[in-house]
Amino acid sequence: MNAYKQLVERHEEIATLSSCAALLSWDQETYMPAKAVTYRAKQRAYLSQQSHMLTTAPEVAKWLDDCGPCADDTIEDANVRWWRHAHARATKLPTDLVGAIEEATSLAVNAWQDALAKDDFGLFQPHLQTIIDHNRRKTDLWGYEESPYDALLEEYERGARASQLSSLFGELRPELVSIVEQAVAQSKSKPAKSLKGDYPIPAQQAFNREVCEAFGFDNEAGRIDTTTHPFCSRVAPHDTRLTTRYDETDFTSSLFGVLHETGHGLYEQGLCQECFAQPQGTSVSLGIHESQSRLWENQVGRSADFWNHWLPVAAKHFPHLANWTPEEMTRAVNQAALTFIRVEADEVTYDLHIMLRFEIEKQLIEGNLKVQDLPEQWNATFKDLTGLEVTNNVVGCLQDIHWSIGALGYFPTYSLGNLNAAQLFEAALAQTPSLNGDLAQGQYASLLVWLKSNVHQHGCRYLPNTLMEKATGRTTGSEAYLKHLRSRYLTG
Amino acid sequence: MNAYKQLVERHEEIATLSSCAALLSWDQETYMPAKAVTYRAKQRAYLSQQSHMLTTAPEVAKWLDDCGPCADDTIEDANVRWWRHAHARATKLPTDLVGAIEEATSLAVNAWQDALAKDDFGLFQPHLQTIIDHNRRKTDLWGYEESPYDALLEEYERGARASQLSSLFGELRPELVSIVEQAVAQSKSKPAKSLKGDYPIPAQQAFNREVCEAFGFDNEAGRIDTTTHPFCSRVAPHDTRLTTRYDETDFTSSLFGVLHETGHGLYEQGLCQECFAQPQGTSVSLGIHESQSRLWENQVGRSADFWNHWLPVAAKHFPHLANWTPEEMTRAVNQAALTFIRVEADEVTYDLHIMLRFEIEKQLIEGNLKVQDLPEQWNATFKDLTGLEVTNNVVGCLQDIHWSIGALGYFPTYSLGNLNAAQLFEAALAQTPSLNGDLAQGQYASLLVWLKSNVHQHGCRYLPNTLMEKATGRTTGSEAYLKHLRSRYLTG
Repeated sequence: MNAYKQLVERHEEIATLSSCAALLSWDQETYMPAKAVTYRAKQRAYLSQQSHMLTTAPEVAKWLDDCGPCADDTIEDANVRWWRHAHARATKLPTDLVGAIEEATSLAVNAWQDALAKDDFGLFQPHLQTIIDHNRRKTDLWGYEESPYDALLEEYERGARASQLSSLFGELRPELVSIVEQAVAQSKSKPAKSLKGDYPIPAQQAFNREVCEAFGFDNEAGRIDTTTHPFCSRVAPHDTRLTTRYDETDFTSSLFGVLHETGHGLYEQGLCQECFAQPQGTSVSLGIHESQSRLWENQVGRSADFWNHWLPVAAKHFPHLANWTPEEMTRAVNQAALTFIRVEADEVTYDLHIMLRFEIEKQLIEGNLKVQDLPEQWNATFKDLTGLEVTNNVVGCLQDIHWSIGALGYFPTYSLGNLNAAQLFEAALAQTPSLNGDLAQGQYASLLVWLKSNVHQHGCRYLPNTLMEKATGRTTGSEAYLKHLRSRYLTG
Repeated sequence: MNAYKQLVERHEEIATLSSCAALLSWDQETYMPAKAVTYRAKQRAYLSQQSHMLTTAPEVAKWLDDCGPCADDTIEDANVRWWRHAHARATKLPTDLVGAIEEATSLAVNAWQDALAKDDFGLFQPHLQTIIDHNRRKTDLWGYEESPYDALLEEYERGARASQLSSLFGELRPELVSIVEQAVAQSKSKPAKSLKGDYPIPAQQAFNREVCEAFGFDNEAGRIDTTTHPFCSRVAPHDTRLTTRYDETDFTSSLFGVLHETGHGLYEQGLCQECFAQPQGTSVSLGIHESQSRLWENQVGRSADFWNHWLPVAAKHFPHLANWTPEEMTRAVNQAALTFIRVEADEVTYDLHIMLRFEIEKQLIEGNLKVQDLPEQWNATFKDLTGLEVTNNVVGCLQDIHWSIGALGYFPTYSLGNLNAAQLFEAALAQTPSLNGDLAQGQYASLLVWLKSNVHQHGCRYLPNTLMEKATGRTTGSEAYLKHLRSRYLTG
């Protein structure tokens, strides 16, 4: 067998283990009995340890070497390049550091929950310090050219650099702040009709499913369950699972949860299912993934076109919506307000929350901010961005789980997702003359076809910025996004 | 590390893999999207292959040897004896035979489904022949003293022998046939009130759960889902999952499904959860397992005591039951009738279906019945047992999945379960003076305590017949069971 085939086989074995692990995680969030949690951790640790062993085994290095230069644009070359990158990163981390990080994060998550419950940053501070220290050791082992932060970013967004993000955000910020000010003022002066009402969960489920299937999600190769925090997980080929949560007084909470996760799910279903075990069959980055969820949630789901088509359907499921107009509904789901919590932020203010986190975590990793000074720095930066005064750390620097699980460099991919979503949607509209008309009629096939052929089907064949360039003619920028926000929020 | 500790560690690894496999199976029956089935088979095959490798690796034989004689009554000795037995059986089967059996059964299941749909035994016949041939090869490799059937029985019921079952059934049959005749006649002459009505599924779920928890099932270490065929699966320590199915016109279908599976579930929850990976923490046999499900379903759930207590509760969930008396309900759930389908048979006629299957599969394995003559032999034996004429193989020899999946020697454990249930219940009553009064008040803790200390906690420490002897003073017999049936069915 040649080296490439050996690599394919090895990664099939690794993918089998990972897909078992994915089911264990999904089950843990959805149906697992509470008392099963200790053994579940043991199962997951075992599977990840087996995967790591298979990934870093000496024969893999040899097979990768034997594959030669791989400078061409073939799928095989792209797979080998991707495997080499992943293999180099995995083998650079000594086993003791991997174990230490696992232990530190499992302690840190508990400490973070405790700190959040008691609004006591001090309980979390030493754990966060350990996590920062481990991550700085990681950046040294992985290596970087400009900022140690780049080495962490690379885990979520290959090719992204702190300097590039800084200039993107620098470009975005002044315009965004001005749009936010106007949008918030408009929402305040002309408040939308209240959505509060009685929305039985089975009716919400039926409506959500109808929209989700209209978008093109294949429910024979996926499903929708209920969890506190919505997510999408591809468990295996032809097995992509979404979740949402229900508010019986407001159907839009579960709906936009489903639309967002459906966007992720359509990406997973649009990947080559037969190459599940290869980079070619895997999503390329978080910034591209989030572009898919944001596009279906925001560009599509919060548009006037969407509600022109779907309000009458919604009114069948929720009879008291019969006296709403599509315009009223569109306004109701596009209200802007400055608030403290990222996960509750609306479309237009969301990126301010990300800019804050990016600044903070970059400074922490670059050594320009001490962990003990984090709350103060958070509050000052937040005030600078929003004008709001953070009065406690629960609505401030303790609100997110990310740092406690060791995820540094993750946050900016949310904003990359927003920028990419607008840029991809603009390109799809420009390249598909029928698209505007299709969307007005609740027809989504042409949009999905465009996304599949320009994004999904490529898997990891191109790095994110190359993918964006091929699909839209340019790398990720803020132009299309600002245009989208202006046209949505400043014309009311 | 000494050899025993090595064995413990190895079996912890195997148990981790098996518990992943158990979740994959459970998920496949409950929530898995239809199109995920092909990859799921691949995942399961991989895990079972890994388990097999770890079980039969050469170092395991060495560790087992190093453990010495193990003739004592300690838990460690009992574990080693059990491991030796399992290891010997696993290593006696060559890999090519294991693979051939896997392939043959996967083809046979499809052929069986096809044959069943078309009522065409000929479609299944060659596959059944292959399965019989493979199983005979297995019996030669495993070895046996009296009948090759014994070698297969051993897989499900250690220590059981065809000769012993023949004499048990020989003892049971004449009396049972006479009870059946009288019970069926009584049910015909004084038909019970009809249960048919409107039972919404959420109300059934709430009632089932109330009873299940009253029996002592811990829903924080388990759950109840919906499947076509009810089952119980211990996925992991503190994670035992039951299923049932719902008939919206008759609540007793899901209820007795749940009571039956709860019996299995209480056994699994009563085992030592910390020794999940050791024989000590594992159920000992199907005949003992089924005794637990049958005891809670039949001895408890179909008794007058049960309905005296639970009918008022049921009437809260299903208001139209308000005009029923406990006596009417008890009669309604204890009707006897001779029918063709085993899984639909009532308590009193059930064992006739098992005797038939035991006779047939024993003859097939001993070479006294040709596969081609199976339908004829089935129909003749069934007529002999019940007086009923089988008019097609769908309600005859094609009705069960067992043979198509290669499970020969499995059927008789259902009857062993019935016999053991009655014998254990009788012993529990004799040894627990308060029990009768407790059951009348819907208090089940004393029964569960007795079962835990006499059955559950021992795991595989004693072979089934020794366990029965320790708990009840004698090995499995038909006396208590016949007494139970007589008192339940012949006093109406």
